[in-house]
Order: sequence, then C-alpha cells, then structure tokens
Amino acid sequence: MKLYVVGIGPGSFENMTVRAVNALKECDVIAGYTVYCDLVRPHFPDKDYISTPMMGEEKRVKMALDKCQEGKNVCLICSGDAGVYGLAGLAVSMAEDLGSKGHMADDGECEEKIQVEIIPGVTAAISGAALLGAPLIHDFCFISLSDRLTPWELIEKRLRLAAEADMTIVLYNPESKSRAGYLRKACDILLEACDGSRVCGVAGEIGREGEYCHVMSLNDLRDYTADMFTTVFIGSSGTRQVGDKMVTPRGYESEK
Amino acid sequence: MKLYVVGIGPGSFENMTVRAVNALKECDVIAGYTVYCDLVRPHFPDKDYISTPMMGEEKRVKMALDKCQEGKNVCLICSGDAGVYGLAGLAVSMAEDLGSKGHMADDGECEEKIQVEIIPGVTAAISGAALLGAPLIHDFCFISLSDRLTPWELIEKRLRLAAEADMTIVLYNPESKSRAGYLRKACDILLEACDGSRVCGVAGEIGREGEYCHVMSLNDLRDYTADMFTTVFIGSSGTRQVGDKMVTPRGYESEK
Repeated sequence: MKLYVVGIGPGSFENMTVRAVNALKECDVIAGYTVYCDLVRPHFPDKDYISTPMMGEEKRVKMALDKCQEGKNVCLICSGDAGVYGLAGLAVSMAEDLGSKGHMADDGECEEKIQVEIIPGVTAAISGAALLGAPLIHDFCFISLSDRLTPWELIEKRLRLAAEADMTIVLYNPESKSRAGYLRKACDILLEACDGSRVCGVAGEIGREGEYCHVMSLNDLRDYTADMFTTVFIGSSGTRQVGDKMVTPRGYESEK
Repeated sequence: MKLYVVGIGPGSFENMTVRAVNALKECDVIAGYTVYCDLVRPHFPDKDYISTPMMGEEKRVKMALDKCQEGKNVCLICSGDAGVYGLAGLAVSMAEDLGSKGHMADDGECEEKIQVEIIPGVTAAISGAALLGAPLIHDFCFISLSDRLTPWELIEKRLRLAAEADMTIVLYNPESKSRAGYLRKACDILLEACDGSRVCGVAGEIGREGEYCHVMSLNDLRDYTADMFTTVFIGSSGTRQVGDKMVTPRGYESEK
C-alpha cells in the first residue's frame, strides 16, 4: 500500500506529467480538494473519489492515509506541485507518525509502514512564467501572502529582503475574499525600494478555460484585483518588457 | 512556423508533461545541448537533431530560429524548465529582434514573425524536493552559484539576504570543474547566520540512472563535493528531518 502525493500541474490534462497520469490510472482512490477532483475526474472516471473542501488539509491527508491502511493505493492530488505550498509535507510527517506508533492491525500484527511517493508537477510559478515570457530566468523567490498560518510581520520582512536582494518575486495566494487588499499592501512595501515602473505580471486559470496573463508596471499591479488563483510576478531591476512579454535577462552578450 | 521551447523535466520520459511529449512528437527538428538530445532521442528517433555543446546558448537559439525560418517546426529543449536558468528568455528576445527587423525572405516578401511557445516543465528544485521529502512547502528562493554571467558579489549578497529572510534556499549550479569550492564558499557565508545543524539536502541525476539524494547538516554540506547536476537545498530554521526525509512545516496544528 502506497500513498502517491501527486502534483497535477495547473489544471489541464496536457500539463500533467506522464508519471502523474500513470499513477492516477493505476491507483484505487483519488483524494483531493473538490475543485481539483472535478478537474481530473473526466480523465479517470472509474476511480473512487474522496473530495474534501478547502482548509481541511489535515483531514484530507488523514482520510487518504486511512484508505491506504485499508489496503488501497491512493493518489492524494494537489494543484501545481504538491511540494510547493502543498500537502507533501503533511503527508510525509503524518505517515511517519503513524509508522512510529507501530500501528496494530485488527489481527494483532504490526502493520507495514505506509510508503509515501511524491510525484512532482508543474507549479503555478513555472506555468505562469511560461505564459508571461521568461521572468524567472535568473534568481527568484516564492512568497505566499497568506497569513492564515504565517505571521504578517514575517511576510513583510521577506518582501523587503527579497526586494533588497533584487530577485524576481513570485507571490502565491495574493488575495482572497477574506484577505482583500493584501496585494496592494505588498506592492506598497515593494514600492519603498522599487520604482513604480518595475515590470510585473499576473497569470491565472492556466491551462483552463479563462486562462489569462498580463504584463504591467508595479504601479498598475498595486491597483490590480487578484484572487486565490492568480500568480503574481514582480520583476528584478533587470526585467524588461519584450513585445508583450516579460523577460529577465541572464547576462548574455546579446541581452546587453 | 513555430519555436517551441520545451522543458523536458529532470531527464526521464515519465517526468515529461503530456504537452512536452506531444510537441516533441509533432515537430520536425529537435535542438538542444548534446546531453539532453541524447536523453530524448530514444523516444523520438525519427526527428532531425541539432545538438550543440555547452556554453553555446546564443548559437543554439540562433540555429533553432534559422530552422524555423526554413519553415520547420522546431522544439528547443532544456532540462528541467526552460524558464528557470534556461533558454526561454533568449528565445523570446531573439525572436522579437528578428521580428522587429522585418526580416525579408529571398522572394522579397516580409516574413511572418516566428511564434514562440514555452512549454513548462518540472525544474530540478521541484523534482529534487520530491525525492528529499518536502523542503519547499513554505517560502523559498532559487540562487545560482555560477558567476559566469553574474558577479560573485551579487550572489554573495543574495545568499546573505536569503538567510536573513529565513527562506529555504535552493542552489543551482553549485560547482563545476572550473568552479571547485564554490559550494563551500556559499556554506561559509550561510554559516555566519545559520547554525551548523541546519537541515540541508542534495539531489542529482533525478529520474536517471544513478539518481541520488541525501539529507545532511549544513556543516556536512560544507564538506560535500557537488557538480553541475547537483541541486542543493538549505532548509529554513523550521525545516526538520522526518525519518530520512527533509520537511519544512507550513504551520499546521499537527506540525507544532
């Protein structure tokens, strides 16, 4: 029995890896957030599904592990990559906890430890960057604006240091209904160190209906309304607009 | 005529996306660094290949664009993702330059602009993290230790600021024959701010023969000999060793 923690990429079948497709084909049960279960169901209609709503991350992993203990092969799916703000960490830790408790089966035999295999996928920074051009060609960082599990002071500190390091910054979870105005707050912090003309971009609904991407200035980004599914890119000082694309140079002769 | 810039992932066919496989199936010509052409050739044996050695990045993109201008559909392949220290930026910029020159064909007609489509792939940080456990579950950054195109002072500055921001750090291009000792130099800088017991990891040859990953302390990483194909992970202060894995917590109750 094995728990596969599978990154399904941005949403379309085409952006899944061959390995993810094979794991989903061969498993007994697919567990995940309702929206992502609905995305994969048409391609794997004959599987058992365990759909859980947002926020129920620990419960979702627990349900997946329970199914493994019943002897099923389970794919726990995450959008993008399961290891980037995803469930891979909880899955490894909770499986290890179960294992170290020497879980006993009904017949008194010590059960085999659940093996966890993480199948990497294309995270939103990577798929969004491909749509926008090439903003991540040089050093960059990922910062989530969600303060549900992280103090806002730490997020703010990281934004300031990332701007000082002059790396391209990718923002995950820029806003949500309960966190309206967070993207503006982040832009205001970045504007202390960066010029308002700094090249930025947004991308969303990647590989799905309604896919969008826009290149804009940091000033314009400040007035942009994002949601949980928008990925935001703030270029480094070297990032340029090339046609309608956003490109960070690597330092080649032809880029000078 | 179209130039597809394709991230082939860490190396195995299974870790390519369905979209990358389809593009490689349907194109006329595959262009890339010799090592990566050799990786895909067995799966797409009937294609024309343009293999160029390392360092010839601008020439490689130029050759791919030339083939497009001959009316061929070309896949320019990169390992991992083409947008992360890859050729996506050069491809977008050089195609734009060609277009803005209003390139004339032999018959005097103005040629159509070459369309560039970037097909995202699984970069080494993502595939390496999946092997090591879940080091990238919270904020993190990518820093390349190659000073071929970037001044070492900037690399050093970014390392210091990333340590201060307490993000997980992924190092690309940690060492090469001509840059022996660079990983040790980087570790010495990080050790000014981080404890020697900080949880770190390395991964390499991912999805290929000889695949490896090891979790170790920052002190041990300082004495590790990496190469161009090793990806290095330095955990944040919260990163823990869980069994033989490396996990950065997200902040869930069960992680406290």
